Amino acid sequence: MIRNERNLTMLTDFYEFTMANGYFERGMGDRRAYFDMFFRRVPDGGGYAVMAGVEQLIDYFSNLHFTDADIEYLRERTCFSEGFLDYLANFKFACDVWAVPEGTPVFPGEPLVTVAGPMIQAQFVETMILLTINHQTLVATKANRITRAAEGRVVLEFGSRRAQGYDGAILGARAAYIGGCHGTACVISDRDYHIPAGGTMAHSWVQMFDSEYEAFRAYADIYPDNCVFLVDTYNVLKSGVPNAIKVAKEMAAQGIRPKGIRLDSGDIAYLSIKAREMLDAAGFPDMQIMASNSLDEHLVRDLINQGARIDSFGIGERLITSKSEPVFGGVYKLVAVDDVNGKIIPKIKVSENVEKITTPHFKKIYRLYDNETGKALGDVLTLHDEVIDESKPYTLFHPTYTWKKKVVTNFTARPLQVQLFDKGELVYQSPDIETIRQYCVDQLQTLWPQTLRFENPQTYYVDFSTRLWKVRHDLLEHCRPD
Amino acid sequence: MIRNERNLTMLTDFYEFTMANGYFERGMGDRRAYFDMFFRRVPDGGGYAVMAGVEQLIDYFSNLHFTDADIEYLRERTCFSEGFLDYLANFKFACDVWAVPEGTPVFPGEPLVTVAGPMIQAQFVETMILLTINHQTLVATKANRITRAAEGRVVLEFGSRRAQGYDGAILGARAAYIGGCHGTACVISDRDYHIPAGGTMAHSWVQMFDSEYEAFRAYADIYPDNCVFLVDTYNVLKSGVPNAIKVAKEMAAQGIRPKGIRLDSGDIAYLSIKAREMLDAAGFPDMQIMASNSLDEHLVRDLINQGARIDSFGIGERLITSKSEPVFGGVYKLVAVDDVNGKIIPKIKVSENVEKITTPHFKKIYRLYDNETGKALGDVLTLHDEVIDESKPYTLFHPTYTWKKKVVTNFTARPLQVQLFDKGELVYQSPDIETIRQYCVDQLQTLWPQTLRFENPQTYYVDFSTRLWKVRHDLLEHCRPD
Repeated sequence: MIRNERNLTMLTDFYEFTMANGYFERGMGDRRAYFDMFFRRVPDGGGYAVMAGVEQLIDYFSNLHFTDADIEYLRERTCFSEGFLDYLANFKFACDVWAVPEGTPVFPGEPLVTVAGPMIQAQFVETMILLTINHQTLVATKANRITRAAEGRVVLEFGSRRAQGYDGAILGARAAYIGGCHGTACVISDRDYHIPAGGTMAHSWVQMFDSEYEAFRAYADIYPDNCVFLVDTYNVLKSGVPNAIKVAKEMAAQGIRPKGIRLDSGDIAYLSIKAREMLDAAGFPDMQIMASNSLDEHLVRDLINQGARIDSFGIGERLITSKSEPVFGGVYKLVAVDDVNGKIIPKIKVSENVEKITTPHFKKIYRLYDNETGKALGDVLTLHDEVIDESKPYTLFHPTYTWKKKVVTNFTARPLQVQLFDKGELVYQSPDIETIRQYCVDQLQTLWPQTLRFENPQTYYVDFSTRLWKVRHDLLEHCRPD
Repeated sequence: MIRNERNLTMLTDFYEFTMANGYFERGMGDRRAYFDMFFRRVPDGGGYAVMAGVEQLIDYFSNLHFTDADIEYLRERTCFSEGFLDYLANFKFACDVWAVPEGTPVFPGEPLVTVAGPMIQAQFVETMILLTINHQTLVATKANRITRAAEGRVVLEFGSRRAQGYDGAILGARAAYIGGCHGTACVISDRDYHIPAGGTMAHSWVQMFDSEYEAFRAYADIYPDNCVFLVDTYNVLKSGVPNAIKVAKEMAAQGIRPKGIRLDSGDIAYLSIKAREMLDAAGFPDMQIMASNSLDEHLVRDLINQGARIDSFGIGERLITSKSEPVFGGVYKLVAVDDVNGKIIPKIKVSENVEKITTPHFKKIYRLYDNETGKALGDVLTLHDEVIDESKPYTLFHPTYTWKKKVVTNFTARPLQVQLFDKGELVYQSPDIETIRQYCVDQLQTLWPQTLRFENPQTYYVDFSTRLWKVRHDLLEHCRPD
């Protein structure tokens, strides 16, 4: 695959190298360490995020190696030992990696990715795990908000020109599709990731001809099956729509129906209602109206509320950059380390800000589904070796306000993470993109409407098992070194 | 060069292909068209943007070609003619390209990139020109704001993990350096673009050891010349700084001075002042204090105003994504097209929003510098064949409020764009990154303080020559087709 040819091993923070060399020099490099990647809040005040980026993470781990040029670059830095450079030259990825599958709704505090393996390696991969998952999860989450606002109408990702760099466009289109978009304008995302790409004409096409009519006429001759006329180059209602109708009638005389028109400026609500009337009156109720002017979930919802007659939305910069909140704040934290006897020692990062205190230990996440409704009841973080007994009532309780309890019965407890790598060997096959996208649709069906809403969604339960709660409590009580 | 190996020819909007095929089919493909890339407003309400991304644009144009797999992908779309696919298979870039050099302060309405060439090609490159320049100019502009706020203190780019995709990190670090940052944490940006990368330790390093002291001690043993202790893993003033001082004293006994400490959480203003006192009292006034906690230009300025004792700033997500305004809204518009006799016909895009009306014709930009002060007096857009006579007084006038005039004398008029490609041949050598960065520093010296300030900067003059003004005026008077 073309996308696998890019070696991003050196895309890492410099301190990953200084630490790795340090562990190597101190003989600690092979000690098993456990890291979790998680996030603390959902962008835009939403109720959940949509996991994305796992396939690219797999590409990264699968390709992890240092070239001679990399070693030479590092040697010239004069701060790394020859033994360490030798280790890198013969690097073999040996970690266990788990991740929540793409398309899954995820919540703050959950380990989206867990890495366990030689300290030197488990630490090193931090930057790329965060970069990969933060970016795609950000865009998938935003796309999901926008497609939800569109209430079943088609939403296309049009943002390549305003993306933050090439992968921002390419993988942004992929993430947007996972989150619910129906396609993209980005050709390379189609070629490499099978995100359906499409498009018709820009204003410059219309301007290249002596008149708008001639531009539409020429387009119709060349693409009779894919005619969407851009009607706002001169004047939507006086020129664009009449010319579109004129060409549509000529096409109809030959038995061809144009697909529709696109509005890219002006008062979209008003213009779409008027254009709809004109198209209907001319005998083209089947011609669709697309809108594409700096839209986001709020504007899409407003347009629908105003009765705009829009069949599909092209969404650009506000989707591809998640403009209203362009950062997904995932972090990657040490949660445990083996002692010399191979016993797991949980680790915690304390902080003055209580919400920044980490959840220690090598863990699992279960999602509990109600067997009657199929709805998700909540998620439970447990120690890695815990199994939730579905035959007995299970008590969920809030990790901070522990008196807040809820006993659940007749449920199915499904582990949320899948294993990607076993001692460095790939043991997972990423689903194809259509399967991932459908999985997202299906999983969202298991959430209650109060979690799905835009404003003040109800906080979904992400609770701890009793054993995990005790580990954390004891560490907080005893481990503060002041 | 490693970075040149990536072929991004297919990173384009699908409509670039449908239009290209259309021009080809209509026999219009070789007609010469002229496009300008420009932007309409400076992000964050600033007074100017910092141009960046030209080197990557050159890489793109230099690599522009379609592989057999690309042709096959396009053929399967069943909407392109075999003649067109053949044209692509034998594609040879033949455009003239001009651009404003990287590091130049630029203003709304100016053609940052101008492309003239066969319509089919000049149109096709739209997406990548916008994507490349929009992204890097966005980050360079933000970096320039932040480094200005830091008033000479060191500013390092630390945002890879929160960037929007891999190039967001890699080229974002490059753009940040052009804009004034002093380095990055991103290793691959150093390897491939010579942006100085550095870093020391994360909290996990401190946690891997049995105590904070041992972690610092181990680091000092391995990196005596590059010791920056991260002091907030447990408690900055009770544990972190005392342990840093303890190790610093041990090092000093061996004649080595540690570089400093880093604060990554808490009340940075208070903690830096206290830490400074403790370091000074312990005999380490030379140990520097670095801060790195979700900072931007406003927080940096606030910290300095509060008397924070910070020598260097590590800036992450708010720089690498330009969080406060994550979109640079560059557009690429048709400005002229040759008629069949080779005469240039200016084109204008009219709009209900007057600020969206384009500036027609094939143009040049001049920047006028006062010969006495060296300061920039303003920029003038002219027709492509105009030469400004420096020996005579020149009248600048506002393109909309034409009675606003200013006569300038004793000035030097410097063309702002350089030619990159001549009929597809590269005729420009991109300066090395240090030269670009220094050029930015030098060019900013030519701006008056009222243009540089953060809030309500004065609008810099970007005026039209009389001839250009008349072309635009006539088109607006006569070309509206309603």
